[in-house]
Amino acid sequence: MKWPERVVVTEVGPRDGLQNEAASIPLESKIEVVDRLSATGLTRIEAASFVSPKAIPQMANAAEVMAGIHRRPGVTYIALVPNERGAHDALTAHADEISVVVSASESHNRSNVNRSVAESLEGVRGIASLCREAGVPWAGYVATSFGCPYEGLVVEESVLRVAHAYADAGAYAVALGDTIGVGDPDQVSRLVAAVTNAVNPVPVRLHFHDTYGRALANTIAAMEVGAGQFDGSVGGLGGCPYAPGASGNVATEDMVSMLEKMGIDTSVDLRVLLGVAEFVQDVVKRRLDGKVLRATLASR
Amino acid sequence: MKWPERVVVTEVGPRDGLQNEAASIPLESKIEVVDRLSATGLTRIEAASFVSPKAIPQMANAAEVMAGIHRRPGVTYIALVPNERGAHDALTAHADEISVVVSASESHNRSNVNRSVAESLEGVRGIASLCREAGVPWAGYVATSFGCPYEGLVVEESVLRVAHAYADAGAYAVALGDTIGVGDPDQVSRLVAAVTNAVNPVPVRLHFHDTYGRALANTIAAMEVGAGQFDGSVGGLGGCPYAPGASGNVATEDMVSMLEKMGIDTSVDLRVLLGVAEFVQDVVKRRLDGKVLRATLASR
Repeated sequence: MKWPERVVVTEVGPRDGLQNEAASIPLESKIEVVDRLSATGLTRIEAASFVSPKAIPQMANAAEVMAGIHRRPGVTYIALVPNERGAHDALTAHADEISVVVSASESHNRSNVNRSVAESLEGVRGIASLCREAGVPWAGYVATSFGCPYEGLVVEESVLRVAHAYADAGAYAVALGDTIGVGDPDQVSRLVAAVTNAVNPVPVRLHFHDTYGRALANTIAAMEVGAGQFDGSVGGLGGCPYAPGASGNVATEDMVSMLEKMGIDTSVDLRVLLGVAEFVQDVVKRRLDGKVLRATLASR
Repeated sequence: MKWPERVVVTEVGPRDGLQNEAASIPLESKIEVVDRLSATGLTRIEAASFVSPKAIPQMANAAEVMAGIHRRPGVTYIALVPNERGAHDALTAHADEISVVVSASESHNRSNVNRSVAESLEGVRGIASLCREAGVPWAGYVATSFGCPYEGLVVEESVLRVAHAYADAGAYAVALGDTIGVGDPDQVSRLVAAVTNAVNPVPVRLHFHDTYGRALANTIAAMEVGAGQFDGSVGGLGGCPYAPGASGNVATEDMVSMLEKMGIDTSVDLRVLLGVAEFVQDVVKRRLDGKVLRATLASR
């Protein structure tokens, strides 16, 4: 079997998407986006980020978002946390799952959280303890896995170092983030195989940005070496913090549409998801660039 | 070797791109687009289409375009022709190579040229004779190879029928066109392998539209089964005649950027090509949606 029978899609639009939008989003809209996404068949939604509102104003009210959403049985609501304080708050807000992020490259990690990679990994162990006590699973993201906005090339060893630390600390999944969208299918093929081998049996998830249009090509390359978990952002919501105006996360509908056409089950109702993408355009007050969304609106 | 060492890119922007643009393009601009493309390292440029100006007004002045361009040694200037009359005109205008198009699906072929597939293939044999006499190579495009706007699914046999006819008539290459961009990597993998096997040793070229964002994923799938020739359109110029506002051909820069990153030689200077894409935006008086173009302009 070249392709997996099913793929698990994690919707990160409410978090990675909205956090990179210029428009200020009211609490009710954030909640409505999550609630609408809950009705698409998606089983995993990253709903909020428990970061300092000073650092990322768009993510203020994370606790209110988690309290306000209507939790649908079968859907896992995930919260991103930068540190133990954030993990404590996310667990208090009854997040079903926690995501942590450490960069593979020192300079990106320093710029992101003002800590060395080693210091961040020490913090991850603290977060892991809190999650273990609460009985909540956590996943570790390796940012800049395919390239760094400051250092350029990121060597495989830097990615493996963080991935190993996650697996050792008890992560239930390791996610490789292509923070600036520079990964290519050849690189994806090699890195995903290496990390999968290193953290086995912990599954590897991929978080591709579509900055240069390669996210779906990279998805194919990753599936070919056994990956079956991918992130997407409804409508392609969000953007690249390093190049305002460029694309951000791959549009969830574009991924679902391709996988569905290939006969791969995603559990998502594409038509309903496209309706949410249209709604999100109104929320962020701009046109979203997801290809399937554009083609669907154009053919009306 | 999973990937080819080099890929041959055919730039179809001046033809498939401009023909689908709303803005009326003056002759001098058409010539300048081709001339600028000639300086990018591209070795193959589809420069004009010798169709009836009544059918496609944007392609009027094909002979003037061919006469006005500054031909660069090493670059093949290609003309698309719908029939023997067009082929005669294209040869008179000293096209280096001729492209013909027949659809795999009857209803698309009928809608396109008001002929049955069999009638079109009879016409191809006439064009082939003219080309043979002139000593000019010709390639055959199979439109709607991956799906038809009227019939939906297109069976493999319909594609193979046209591909076989091309090979029998002496085509030097067979090109599979994903006219409405519905192809997926699994389908591409199977169809390209089947056609390659059927027309061997005639090479198979792929012409992907990016309507649903799958063009680069499909490129990867095609390369994995041995394809090494692809079409692209500078900036993603053009669009989908069946869904105005949707994407058209894959942006040549997006393809070149991915291939270059993978270590595959394309002969194209990406930086120079991006400059042409910027120029073309002024010519067509609209923003072009090529991802690498958007990211490059955004990061300035």
